[in-house]
Amino acid sequence: MIVLVSDKMKNITPFHVMALLERAKELEKQGRNVIHMEVGEPDFPTPEPIVTAGMNAIRQGDVKYTPAAGLPELRERIAYFYQQRYGVTVAAERVLVTPGASGALLLALGVSLNSGQSLLMADPSYPCNRNFMAFLGAQAQLIPVRGETNFQLTAQLIEQNWQQNTRGVLVASPSNPTGTLISKQALNECIDITEEKKGCFYSDEIYHGLVYQGEAQTALAYNDDVFVINSFSKYFGMTGWRVGWLIVPACFYGAAEKLAQNLFIAAASHSQYAALAALDNQSMIILEARRFEFQRRGDFLYEQLIRLGFVIMCRPQGAFYIYADCSALTDNSFQFVQELLEVEGVAITPGCDFGDSNANSFVRFSYTSDLEHLNEAIFRIERFLKNK
Amino acid sequence: MIVLVSDKMKNITPFHVMALLERAKELEKQGRNVIHMEVGEPDFPTPEPIVTAGMNAIRQGDVKYTPAAGLPELRERIAYFYQQRYGVTVAAERVLVTPGASGALLLALGVSLNSGQSLLMADPSYPCNRNFMAFLGAQAQLIPVRGETNFQLTAQLIEQNWQQNTRGVLVASPSNPTGTLISKQALNECIDITEEKKGCFYSDEIYHGLVYQGEAQTALAYNDDVFVINSFSKYFGMTGWRVGWLIVPACFYGAAEKLAQNLFIAAASHSQYAALAALDNQSMIILEARRFEFQRRGDFLYEQLIRLGFVIMCRPQGAFYIYADCSALTDNSFQFVQELLEVEGVAITPGCDFGDSNANSFVRFSYTSDLEHLNEAIFRIERFLKNK
Repeated sequence: MIVLVSDKMKNITPFHVMALLERAKELEKQGRNVIHMEVGEPDFPTPEPIVTAGMNAIRQGDVKYTPAAGLPELRERIAYFYQQRYGVTVAAERVLVTPGASGALLLALGVSLNSGQSLLMADPSYPCNRNFMAFLGAQAQLIPVRGETNFQLTAQLIEQNWQQNTRGVLVASPSNPTGTLISKQALNECIDITEEKKGCFYSDEIYHGLVYQGEAQTALAYNDDVFVINSFSKYFGMTGWRVGWLIVPACFYGAAEKLAQNLFIAAASHSQYAALAALDNQSMIILEARRFEFQRRGDFLYEQLIRLGFVIMCRPQGAFYIYADCSALTDNSFQFVQELLEVEGVAITPGCDFGDSNANSFVRFSYTSDLEHLNEAIFRIERFLKNK
Repeated sequence: MIVLVSDKMKNITPFHVMALLERAKELEKQGRNVIHMEVGEPDFPTPEPIVTAGMNAIRQGDVKYTPAAGLPELRERIAYFYQQRYGVTVAAERVLVTPGASGALLLALGVSLNSGQSLLMADPSYPCNRNFMAFLGAQAQLIPVRGETNFQLTAQLIEQNWQQNTRGVLVASPSNPTGTLISKQALNECIDITEEKKGCFYSDEIYHGLVYQGEAQTALAYNDDVFVINSFSKYFGMTGWRVGWLIVPACFYGAAEKLAQNLFIAAASHSQYAALAALDNQSMIILEARRFEFQRRGDFLYEQLIRLGFVIMCRPQGAFYIYADCSALTDNSFQFVQELLEVEGVAITPGCDFGDSNANSFVRFSYTSDLEHLNEAIFRIERFLKNK
């Protein structure tokens, strides 16, 4: 065998945080206490009604293949969720249940992107998105965004950066890593200009529900012909269950279903039955209480980080991340992150994992741990800064 | 938006059996009874120890993300399984737990295939494999195989068909749709010639365990530097749980792990905990009893189909399929399948879903239903043939 890793793998960048995580594990093995503020997984358990539904599904033998596009009743329920939450009518025929948002993104890009094409997306943004494109032989065209636009793309930026091989635009709101929302007006304008350019619009809405200020609107409110990626992982607390969904423009449904049949067969069956319960009132009450808890944590962390000298240009409005400018404290955020882990056992993510633009000035904090841990983390960071 | 389904989707062929399934559903809605011999999903429920382990995992909150390559204890357990079952030593570091064999195949091909390259594979064979390649911009080079080689590739066929853009060889044993095994010697020779050509060897072993005559050997017995795809779906009765595994040549591990991180995050956590129990003795006892039941069904179906005038060139040795030559009964197997469904409510799969070579002369029967159903199906097929 010639050991030749495929070309596409060379364009898939590893996450710097992975090396950091390895080091954190080593430290923990040595008996050190590490506070994890680098992970994108909430500390809350899956809500009880979802747990019960998942167990019942297994007990009842609901572990056979479902149709490739998902359980019909779950697709219906998701469609109804758009009516309930956003007042938007979506046909269940356009909903595909997928193995997490990852599966949704693979389908969306797979059916619509050719190799050599590119998508406009914000820098900073979630690094897997550009790696999905590399996997498909396409490219992410990263557009530096700043606090002035809430770290989001604008119609103007889209217009300015559109190139011949640009196939469309990917927007994520609330954003990972910045936690910022795109305004309703900006979202509408971004969709309009994309349509004018005859491009595809992809809206990553996986942090919807986890919004503390303002309101996240679905892209479907402005145009039927958009791709919407969502998931039961974050707001619904179902990370390891691996179930998400994709809404496609009607004309892409046939291709998306065919691709799902081939690539996945289907999402895990019991996870889909469990997800049905996630959309019930009983679960929603639990999830709303958690949202308030996240807000408390976010508010605390925001105030404390500012007190310590971090600059936060846009107060996060959603998700569970704060993207903080640390340039007053260091000129190398990656080194800063490494030292903070070694000296104080606090793990955060360096800016370079989210893009190239000004990445050395930024770090991302997750507030997926409870206030007690966050308090201890702030204490340690303060000590770290004093002794530097 | 310009509605332009991506180029790769044009090369992904739909399954003819899907239209048939739709029609079967319609008939069932009309109150007709349909016997399903078209599906690749066993009728047995997931064994009780696996069910219990899955429920316990959920109850205990083991539904957080696992590492991308899978639960360390499951990877260890799978590695040990190779020692137990095949007497082959495999390092756990080479095992990746995936969302079904589908995920395993996507990783294996993703890390090793460039667009424009091709893989040699048997015609007939499992149609998703060639669609995975189309998705990656690569091609399946289908090699017609006959009963003389047990419907499997041989070193000679590989040698004869190797082209400049050939990247490697994919062998599936037991085969879907033919149920035939590749002999140990032929497997060894195929691996040797592939190595000589400096190609990659991919061994689809998802029907291992379901073997009734002869013995299926893992490709790992002959060479460390092969890709092995396997799954908990078929033998272990865990279809809807979506958990499989991939063993990679050591030099591909880094790339495969990176790709898994990006494409999947991880396989469903509770499914992985459940899979741990699948490899226990308690489950194995249940699974072996089922294997005998499959053998009884296969023997019955084989005898009966021959009695009815089907020609079965190679008596199936594994899986739960019989690939039968129906050219003495029809000159168009697709039409035959449609009529059999309409007239008698028996659903089987036409040969054209598995390749181009002589497909009109073949149909595939699954014996995933119990003997009572198989008996009724034979009764109906006999009546159908009499009235034709």
